[in-house]
Order: sequence, then structure tokens, then C-alpha cells
Amino acid sequence: MTEAVAPRRGRGGGGAARRAERTAIRIETAKYIERNIPNFEILTEEALEIIEANAETVLAEIGVNFVNNPGALALWREAGAEIEGERVRIPRGLARKLCQTAPESFTQHARNPERNVVIGGKSLVLAPVYGPPFVRDAEGGRRYATMEDFRNFVKLGYMSKYLHHSGGTVCEPTDVPVNKRHLDMLLAHMTLSDKPFMGSVTEPSRAQDSVEMCEILFGRDFVQQNTVMTSLININSPMTFDDVMMGALEVYAKNNQACIVSPFIVGGAMAPVSVAGTLTQVLAEVLAGIAYCQLVRPGAPVIFGAFVTSIDMNSGAPTFGTPEASQILYGAGQLARRMRLPYRSGGALCGSKLPDAQAAYESANTLNAALLGGVNFMLHACGWLEGGLVSSYEKFVMDADQLGVLHKLAKGVAIDANAQAMGAIAEVGPGGHYLGCAHTQANFKDAFWRSDLLDYKPFETWEEEGARDTQALASALVTRLLETYQQPALDPAVAAALEAYVTEKKASMPDAFL
Amino acid sequence: MTEAVAPRRGRGGGGAARRAERTAIRIETAKYIERNIPNFEILTEEALEIIEANAETVLAEIGVNFVNNPGALALWREAGAEIEGERVRIPRGLARKLCQTAPESFTQHARNPERNVVIGGKSLVLAPVYGPPFVRDAEGGRRYATMEDFRNFVKLGYMSKYLHHSGGTVCEPTDVPVNKRHLDMLLAHMTLSDKPFMGSVTEPSRAQDSVEMCEILFGRDFVQQNTVMTSLININSPMTFDDVMMGALEVYAKNNQACIVSPFIVGGAMAPVSVAGTLTQVLAEVLAGIAYCQLVRPGAPVIFGAFVTSIDMNSGAPTFGTPEASQILYGAGQLARRMRLPYRSGGALCGSKLPDAQAAYESANTLNAALLGGVNFMLHACGWLEGGLVSSYEKFVMDADQLGVLHKLAKGVAIDANAQAMGAIAEVGPGGHYLGCAHTQANFKDAFWRSDLLDYKPFETWEEEGARDTQALASALVTRLLETYQQPALDPAVAAALEAYVTEKKASMPDAFL
Repeated sequence: MTEAVAPRRGRGGGGAARRAERTAIRIETAKYIERNIPNFEILTEEALEIIEANAETVLAEIGVNFVNNPGALALWREAGAEIEGERVRIPRGLARKLCQTAPESFTQHARNPERNVVIGGKSLVLAPVYGPPFVRDAEGGRRYATMEDFRNFVKLGYMSKYLHHSGGTVCEPTDVPVNKRHLDMLLAHMTLSDKPFMGSVTEPSRAQDSVEMCEILFGRDFVQQNTVMTSLININSPMTFDDVMMGALEVYAKNNQACIVSPFIVGGAMAPVSVAGTLTQVLAEVLAGIAYCQLVRPGAPVIFGAFVTSIDMNSGAPTFGTPEASQILYGAGQLARRMRLPYRSGGALCGSKLPDAQAAYESANTLNAALLGGVNFMLHACGWLEGGLVSSYEKFVMDADQLGVLHKLAKGVAIDANAQAMGAIAEVGPGGHYLGCAHTQANFKDAFWRSDLLDYKPFETWEEEGARDTQALASALVTRLLETYQQPALDPAVAAALEAYVTEKKASMPDAFL
Repeated sequence: MTEAVAPRRGRGGGGAARRAERTAIRIETAKYIERNIPNFEILTEEALEIIEANAETVLAEIGVNFVNNPGALALWREAGAEIEGERVRIPRGLARKLCQTAPESFTQHARNPERNVVIGGKSLVLAPVYGPPFVRDAEGGRRYATMEDFRNFVKLGYMSKYLHHSGGTVCEPTDVPVNKRHLDMLLAHMTLSDKPFMGSVTEPSRAQDSVEMCEILFGRDFVQQNTVMTSLININSPMTFDDVMMGALEVYAKNNQACIVSPFIVGGAMAPVSVAGTLTQVLAEVLAGIAYCQLVRPGAPVIFGAFVTSIDMNSGAPTFGTPEASQILYGAGQLARRMRLPYRSGGALCGSKLPDAQAAYESANTLNAALLGGVNFMLHACGWLEGGLVSSYEKFVMDADQLGVLHKLAKGVAIDANAQAMGAIAEVGPGGHYLGCAHTQANFKDAFWRSDLLDYKPFETWEEEGARDTQALASALVTRLLETYQQPALDPAVAAALEAYVTEKKASMPDAFL
């Protein structure tokens, strides 16, 4: 790939770093959201009870498969489940009972304690896009993601005020061997950002590497006593728990690290076409997955995950920002809260190929539903494009800016004497103007959320400046952020130890690209 | 203006009309939304009571101005208000009591009874953008709106499945004299669409013309006994009721036609910078306006309106899709429901100059809030651009498509045996696939909402077809709709009478452009 295709490369180098030191301002990160507003509850009590009863029926009568995992079958048998081949049938009530040892909320520690996040209760923690093999930017178009892209996205995440979490696979660095890329990815999160991050789940051994690198970063005792990673364990819906994902879950649970136990569902393909049917399956799967996690280690932190999209029955394409996806998000949130578990869903999800109006409609639909639906951990909160195939530079900063809307909305409405503003109304009176009044002067700085990206200029100014659309504004912001990026300080001995670990691990095995 | 600038002109002519007759399909219009989901309530009971008490204080101690309107002052004095100059101070409880004669909901009749809408209760009626002096399309850019544009927007509204209402000033036809354009606008709504519409409010005499044209269209008795127009009466915030708007309100109320009594507020300029303060002023203004309407004619249908935007304190520009605007929308909805009045707010509001991602984020934020916030009548539901300065052809169909999301979301979640899909889950089982199962086959057609506009194609197909963004897809849809437009049938005698009325009225006065 040439410089022309990926013009941002190398900007983190010497000259840029020196410029950055001269010009960069202190990185501001908003505290994770603590909601002061109610949740939106779309399901009635009766509907919830039906879905819960049906999920128990699914577990007891149909059961779930734990594939290629004799250890899991043994644990389930011992707990009282009925095992037939790889099928696990779980008596009514057992899975729910096992889930009760999971904490209602937990703290995920960051290497900078100011960036610690609480996941659960009324909190909402925002993390970036996860998983795309491609990246896109305005200048270079769509191309395979590289480690350089990965580092750029970690830097953008670090600099994004409304992003609380550095995430995990912000894109797949396809230029690094599959069996080694987790090492480079973790090293990037640990050294280029000081926000919390996710561990590798693509092999149990890579989960173990993740734990070991955290032991270097945080100290061994600290890791055993605290949660420092939240990792994504997808369920192979319908109702299949594969050995790779469960192997990673086992490593994390044994080490007291958090797992998001998350059905991955394209509705109509991996679950019934109906919302109630999908919710039933989601609940059954999460009950089984989290119960298993608690069998591995009672009390291990977990998150009730629900990644559910609808499908375009004409093309078979997954669709995002749709009403059915929102209904499932709202409903699953209610089910999670009834289990007193942290809830993962949402994201700036979209099917569009470009960071255009479609991308924004679809993303905004889901972002709004996620806030009101009580999500506690939102992966893909920025940067997701093209159904998750693409991490978009521009959309990353566009979505990240919109996350500010969620922060302010979640604060709720102040009703103290200052907020009532009766003095201002009396001072101004009929036909008057508030811009100059004392109350406005005293409050205007924090009164209204303001985008750091969007265009608020007069038409003539906007036209003179090139009549730029949102993508063009975002492209300029990406460049500015990457140019002014400054690496957060890290103990050089720790940095050297992490580098040494990665070098040694890489040298211990041949490259594998499958 | 040349053909190149406004390429759509003339497409309604002979050749296009004949083509349309051969190719057009029957126009499908969704029934107005009847919500089967709860409202989102952001304010506590305590906060609501404080705001209501404060609004009464504003009315009793500060009062409102009825400008240049001795008749209104006389009515208020008679009702028990204290008059001082043009200031009307309304004793605590009086305005709220007067509002009690207003209906909780009403039917607005369309000339096609299938298009009648119920406004109030659990309903949501969607109407297009109102007021812009400019239009924009992808080919012609931004330019002053003309009557030809106006007709095009009425046609697009007629053909939009999810739009229930033809609206009012879908753009300002600046090529028609100010004192005559209401006649052409009404004629367009009456003849080019069969959906309900709004009347003129720019002069009391024009409101009277609107009533008279409706008497031709519906019959005189029908108009006196039924509501056939819902018109927009803006309050000149803070707390000023000007004689032009009140004159129009008086005409409509006397004729049993509906008025939206609507503060028009840029927060921080026309109301306090705080949400609670703004809600207090909104409530005081609406109480006074609706009470006055009920003084003019007890029982006249009204709508509690709230058009509130935030402001960018750097530039003074109004801002849209912001968290504060959503909070006010949610709060005002609660206040309206406590008065048992229909509620108008929301819209696909945005500040962007282009139908880009900014436009879509901001619009989607407001559209979602309006659905969950219990709005009953949503003006500006599609087509609004650049803070309301521009009616956008592309954004009209983009927003109108997204209105389908609201329809489906509002239906709520079915929980009957078919929706529970227990048979499907059993049939498919762990590791299976739902695409071919009986339940999917029986339900897939209605299972998922599908956009008529957005791109769901595979990447390769999309690229081969020109890698179009949403604006380009929308532009093609606009062309297709206008090419296939067919005028709904209307009794030729009625059409001729309407034409004659317009011709005669126009001839009765010289042109005025101010």
C-alpha cells in the first residue's frame, strides 16, 4: 500500500511527535455515563414472563450444544444438567440460579485509574468498533486493514473525549500473522492509550497471553484481584458454544476477568424471524453461557450480551438501525435487568458502504435505543461501517462526536432553583431577549452540548470554506487528531517488559495466516 | 432559472403524465401511527408539579402580551384576567381551566376519507417540512423556491407511503406574490394530493380564504361540522401573541378548524438557557394561547405545540438533534398529556447544509425522540434542511423512508403463540438455520421493515452500480417518483370551482411582494 493510499501513515513518527508535543492539549476523557433518566421498557410484565418461561423450556427440552469440550460437559453433568452427546439440557431454573453468583456490576481497571469504568447498574461505558478486516478513509477508500491502521484507531480512541474504553480488535491487522497479531494489538492498547481494553478470544492460548501481558502491565497480584479486561465471547447461535470461544471464556473466568457472553444473531437466520422468538433464544443462550461461566468460577464478572440485527429478506443482507433491532435491544435490556446483570448491546451499527446519511440514520437509531434501553457496555459505539466489514476513519470521529449527545441526555433535567430560571423569565418579560440576561450569562457555557465536528456556520462562511459535507469535516478532524497525538506516559521498564514478552512470544512459533 | 438548474421542471407535463399512467402503481399510504408502546417520561412527578406551578406564576405575575388586539383584551378581561395596556395577567388556574373545553383528540378530514387522521391520544400523524424559502437538490444546488417546487413537494408527499398529511407551506413559492401565494398553495394541496393539509396563517383574510376554499372542496356544512384544516399558529416567544397570528387563530377557531398553538423558541434567545426554565415558559405560553382559543370558541380543536431548538453559543446558530432539544421534547410531551391535549413537536430537524451524515444524525435523534416522547402531530417529518431555510428534495425522500422505522417500532412487540416461535426453535435446534424453516417461510414477508431507499446490496454490486451514497440514491428516487406521479381523481366541477375562486381572488387585488 502506498503513501497515497494511506496518507496517515508515519505521522506518529519523529517530526510529527515533536510537533505534537508543542501543540497538543491535554486529553480530556468524559467519565463513563451514569444515567439519571429512566429506561425505556417496551415489553409488558406478562410478555417478559412468557419469554422467561419459554427460555427455560428451550434449555430444558431442546438444550444447547457444548462442542468438542468434555470438560464443560463434565461441569454441567455435575451441576445437574442432562448430557446427551454434546447436547446439554438444563433443568428449569438451574441456569438462572447459577447466574446469581455473577456480580450486578464490576469495575474494569485501566492503567490510568482515572479511566477506570464501572460496568453495570446505571452506567454506560462506550467502546469502539470491533472486528472489521477492512478500513476506509476518504482519501484511500476501502482496503485491507493493517497494524498501522490498528494503531491509528487506538490513538483516535485515546483522543476521543466521549469514548471510555479502548476496545479490542478495532480492526483486523491483516499484515500480521493470525497467531501473532493479538500480541501487537494488546501492546498497542497498553502503550498507545491508557483507557481500559479487551483481551484476545481467538484461541485459549491467546487469552492466556492476554492475561500474562496484563500481569506485566498491572502486576500479577493486581490482575488476580481485579478485573482489567472485558472480552467478547460470541455464542454461535442458535444455541451452540464452540470450544475456541469457551476455551477463551474459561481462561478469563478462571483469572477473574470479565466476559461478554453474547449471542451473535442475524434475525431470521440464526434466530426466529419474530422479536419474541429471538428474545427467547437470546435469553436461553445467555442463561446457559453465563451459568457455565459461573460453573468455571463462581463470581466471575460477566455481561449479558445481545448483538442482534434484522435481515433483508430480498438479499439476505443483515440490516441495522431497524425497528426490530431496536425492539430486541429494548426487550433484552429488560431481561438482563431482571437477572441483575450488566447488559451489552447497541453500537453505531449500519449497513452503509460510506459514512453518509444512511450510515448516520442507522447509527443514530441504534445509539438512541442503546441509551434509553439501559445498555451498560456499548461495543461498536464508533467507527463501524458496512455491516462491520469496515472500520471507517471518518465515521469513527463522527460517531464519537455523537456520543456526546448521549452523555448530556443521560444527565436528565435539573430542576433546582437555578434551572427553574424564574428570575430570568421575570427579568426578560414578554417580547424581550434572553441572550444578554444575567441567568444566560451565568449558565451559557454548560447549557448546551456542542459538537466538536458538525457544521454550525452561516451558509456563506460554509460555502466559502469549500461547502464541506460531514465526511470532509471528519477527514480533517482525523488528520488533526493523529497529528497532535501524544503517547500517554508509561514506566519505561514496563514498556520494555511488554516489548520483550511480545518479541519472545513471536519468536517461539512460526507465522500462521489461517 | 434554467432547466439545468432545476431539471425536474416540466416533468409533470404531457409526456411524463402519459408515461406515468402506463407505469404508476397504486399509491399506498400507511394509516397514521397508533402507538402500542409506552411514552418515555424524563421528568419526575415532582419536576412536573414545579414547572406547572411556575408556569401559573409566570401567567399571574408576569403575564403575556396580546399585541394590537383590543378584541382579545376584551375577551380576557371578561374571563377574569387583569389587563394593563397590552399585558394580560391570568390568575392562577384560569388558563388551565379554560383549556379544559379543548378536545383530547380530533379527526382531521381529508377529501379522501381513507386519508382522515386522528390527532391526539396514542396517535402520531406525520406531515412534511413547513416554511423554507429555499430548495436544494443534488443537481441544481440551493436556490429560491418556486411554485413549481411547491407542486413537486406536494406530489412527493402524496406518493410517500409513511406521510399521512400533505402539510402546508412545504416551501415558500417566492415567484408568486406574497398576497396571492396562499391561493396557489392551497389549490396544489387540494388538487395534487388527497391527504389532509394546513391552512394559511399569514393574514386573517388568508385564513378566511382557506376556509372558503375548503367550503368549495368539502361543502359548506361539512366544514362547519368537521375539522378539515390544522394550521400553525406560532407564538412570538417570549410571551407575545401578535395580531396577525391571533387573527388567523380567531378565524380558524370560529370555524371549528384546528390550530397548533406553538411557541417558536431558540433556547437561550427566546427562552432561558435551562431546560426546566424553557419548559416553564413553553407551558405558560401554550396555556395562554389555547385558553384564548377556547375563549374564541369553546371546544375548538387545538394542539399543544413546542418547537424548541438549542443554540450554539459560539455562533448564535440554532442547533438541532441536540440532547437539550430532546429533553424539552420529552418534557413538553408530559406536560401536554397532563392537560389531555394533542401534542405537536419533533421533525427531521437538522442544521446541516447538505443531506449528509450530520443531517441524518440530527434528524434521527429528533425523529426517535418524537416517537418515544408521545408526539401526536409531527410537522417537518421530512425534507427539512439547513435549520429550516431549505426544503431538500433528496432529504424529503430520505426522511420519509425513515418514517417507516417509526411505524414499525410503534407497533410494539407481538407475544402471541406465532410470535413466540417455540415450534421454530424446536424445529431448528442447536447449530441449525432458520432461513428455511416453516415459521420463517410463513412470517418473513412482514417480519422486518425494509427501506425503499437505502442500500442493502453486496459491496461488489454497489460498487459496479456507481458506489452511490444516500443522496445519489435519493436523487434517483425523487426523479422516479415525480415521473410516475398520477394526480388523484377529483370531481371536475369542484376542481373548476376552486380554480375559479383562485382566479377571481387574484384578480381582486394588485400583486404584493412584501
